[in-house]
This record gives sequence, C-alpha cells and structure tokens, in this order.
Amino acid sequence: MRYELYYWPSIQGRGEFVRLALEEAGADYLDVARKRGRKPIETLLAGRRETHPPFAPPFLKAGKRSIGQTANILLYLGARHGLAPKDEDGRLWANQLQLTIADLVGEVHDTHHPIASALYYEEQRPEAKRRTADFWKRRVPKYLGYFEQVIARSGGPYLLGRRLGYVDLSLFQIIEGLRYAFPKRMKRFEKKVPRVITLRDRVAKRPRVSAYLASERRIPFNEWGIFRHYRELDC
Amino acid sequence: MRYELYYWPSIQGRGEFVRLALEEAGADYLDVARKRGRKPIETLLAGRRETHPPFAPPFLKAGKRSIGQTANILLYLGARHGLAPKDEDGRLWANQLQLTIADLVGEVHDTHHPIASALYYEEQRPEAKRRTADFWKRRVPKYLGYFEQVIARSGGPYLLGRRLGYVDLSLFQIIEGLRYAFPKRMKRFEKKVPRVITLRDRVAKRPRVSAYLASERRIPFNEWGIFRHYRELDC
Repeated sequence: MRYELYYWPSIQGRGEFVRLALEEAGADYLDVARKRGRKPIETLLAGRRETHPPFAPPFLKAGKRSIGQTANILLYLGARHGLAPKDEDGRLWANQLQLTIADLVGEVHDTHHPIASALYYEEQRPEAKRRTADFWKRRVPKYLGYFEQVIARSGGPYLLGRRLGYVDLSLFQIIEGLRYAFPKRMKRFEKKVPRVITLRDRVAKRPRVSAYLASERRIPFNEWGIFRHYRELDC
Repeated sequence: MRYELYYWPSIQGRGEFVRLALEEAGADYLDVARKRGRKPIETLLAGRRETHPPFAPPFLKAGKRSIGQTANILLYLGARHGLAPKDEDGRLWANQLQLTIADLVGEVHDTHHPIASALYYEEQRPEAKRRTADFWKRRVPKYLGYFEQVIARSGGPYLLGRRLGYVDLSLFQIIEGLRYAFPKRMKRFEKKVPRVITLRDRVAKRPRVSAYLASERRIPFNEWGIFRHYRELDC
C-alpha cells in the first residue's frame, strides 16, 4: 500500500515528523501536495464527504483511512513499521513522549508568533522577543533536560533504550530545528544535554535518514515553517 | 484496582479532563494531591526512580504503571472503560479529536499567558488582550465550527455518533470553561454551534457527571487554572 501524506508543500513544519518516520521505515509514500500543489489539501479540508474530517494538516491516507494529528499518525505508523514497542506499556510511553515533543513544537512556534498565527511576525516582534527570552530561560532547559533524563533512565542511546523509535526521529528534528532557528543560543546550550546530542548524531547517520536529508525530498528550513531564524531572537 | 490521579489540588486544569472520564466511568480513584497536598506530585516529578518519569501533571498511576499526558491517559482509560470505540479505526479517530481539543486547551491558556506561564497575567496584559481578540475572531470559530461539523457528520448526538466517549466529556469541559472565562462572548457565539451545545447539555445530564458536578470533588473554576475570567478580556 502506498501512503499519501497531505501537508503544505513548501515547509517542513509538523509534516516533517511524519516524513522522517516514513523515510526511516522505508515506506512507500506520496507527498501529495509536493506533486500536485496545495489544492488537494484544501479540497480535503473543505471536503463534505470525509467520515473523519481533519482539522488541519498533516494527515495521512492509508488505504481508505484518513488519520490526522501528528502524534496520532505516528502512533499508527509506529505500530506498523517497528518504530515503537509492541506492548501496550511501551506504546503508551512512546506516545507520552511524543505528546511532550508536540507541546514543545507548539512553544517553538509561539516564539515567533506569540499573539496570532494569522498575523505576520513583523506585527508581533516585541512580543516575540519577550516570549523567546522566556523560552530559552525556562522552557528549553526544562524540555531538553527532561529528554536528557529520559535517555539516562532508559540506558540509551535512544529515548526508549537500545532500539530507535519514532520519538527519536522527532527529537532529532527538534535539535535540527533549534540549531537552524537559534544557532548562537544552541551552541551555548548543547553541552548541557550530551545524551540528546549523541542521539541526534546517531539518528543523522542512519542510512535512510541520511539519504533522505541529502535528497530533494527534504525541504530546507525557511521562514514560513515552525523553526524560523530571526537574528534578533538569537542572541 | 484503585487509580491514583496526580494533579494540582486547587485547579481543574488539564487534570479535569481525566477526572471527568474517571467519574463517568464510575472508576475507583484517589485524587492524590487533594488528599495529601502537592508534595506527592513534586516528589514524583523529581523522582529518580521512575522508569517513565512524567514531564508534568496530570499523570495517572494504574497499578505499577505511570501514564502521563492528558490525551494519553484518556487513550488508556477509554479502552478500559468503554469510553472509546473498540476497533483501531475508531480509537485513532477519538485520539485525533482529543489531540485537537488539547491544541485548543493550549490556546485557551495562552489567551491570558501569551508571553510566559512563569509570569503573572498582570505582566502580560496588553499582549493577552491582543491574543484574546484573535482567539475569538479566528480560533474559537475554527475549532468549535469543526466540532459542530464532526457531530453533523457522525449523525450525533455525540462526536462519534450515538455513543458517548471521553472526547465528549472533554468537549463538555471546553464549553463550561469558555462560559466561565468569557460569558459575554460565549453568549453571542453559542448559537453558531447548536450541536455542540446540545452535546454539552446531554453530558451535563448524565447521572454520574451531574452527581460529580454537584459534589465537592468538582473544584470551582478560578483564576489559577486554564479557564480564567478577566473582565477586560470578555467584551
């Protein structure tokens, strides 16, 4: 079966967490909007016939199924492609970690859009500066410190222990994104979370991941996505 | 088995979505911090021995298990107490809806705390005003309009059709919270989502829910939780 991924064609965004899982799984998938433009997404969002209408991209079509919400798509894919533990306990734990990553992703977005997604960054710049300061003072240390502790507890090198899971791909993406958006701050911060950085390096070296990152399928980071580089926010 | 719920003892907050599910299920549970103060939460958060350390409350102890993240706890409880469909398709769909509710909850919180959770509301009042304006202009109509459409599509009266699920309890809580925080705005808005309001009324009348709401176990809304009433934000 060929999966169909529906996500904005010009950004990594939340879709990237799904793309990374599909790539590491070696799954056959079509990144629909990159082939056919935004139209198919908008059609589905407005679609009157969907039994399970999505609220927002990304969503995945798997045969007749349509599955939305990033963490939910990963819950589904993880079970099918060996990217999550098979037992219920492990599956719930992986999902718990992924939801914590989702919370962090939301906070990253709000560093540049603390007032409204619908406004431009330039319309909320002073607020973005304040929010970013708090994000780096309190939130990044709390989140990344937590993942550091989880790896220590599991015995590493991955979040769940010796086997790579979809949550590791997502944590890799977080590090890549923070490095892109806040290179100076990240440079100073990384030494505090050595296990997280080792995990990132291991993920980057996985054959399928590294082939993907070098391919045209990997959209470059840019200032329309979740991780954006604004020099005045990185000091 | 007696569940142990770990959540802040003086607010409804995210813990309330779990409390409502436990109450509707008629489950035996201890609201730990309400009996013993905040100490047990802080001990567990700092705990060095947990295999699955939680990032933040709420978390649920079920025998030896410790499960965190609201939507993840509900995924677990839903399967055990008939509050979610049994088939994978239905379970994923319920989870997808719950994650959309979780996103909305985050946005509600940020109406009064757009800059930082760690600062007081009074330290981010102008920003809160701007964010709240956008929240009511664009976000509430989008979210509640979406749930209205989902109920229409399922045939109602609940989100998943004829049977109540944990997502309905959560949507009920959203309406209660919005009514508390923004009574004037909600009064004007409600007529746009009649199916959502009917669902809210049905949930409120369920014997266990209504007994719970009338009991001391239901903490009143207040200005420390997610749904806060500030008169200047409700106009």
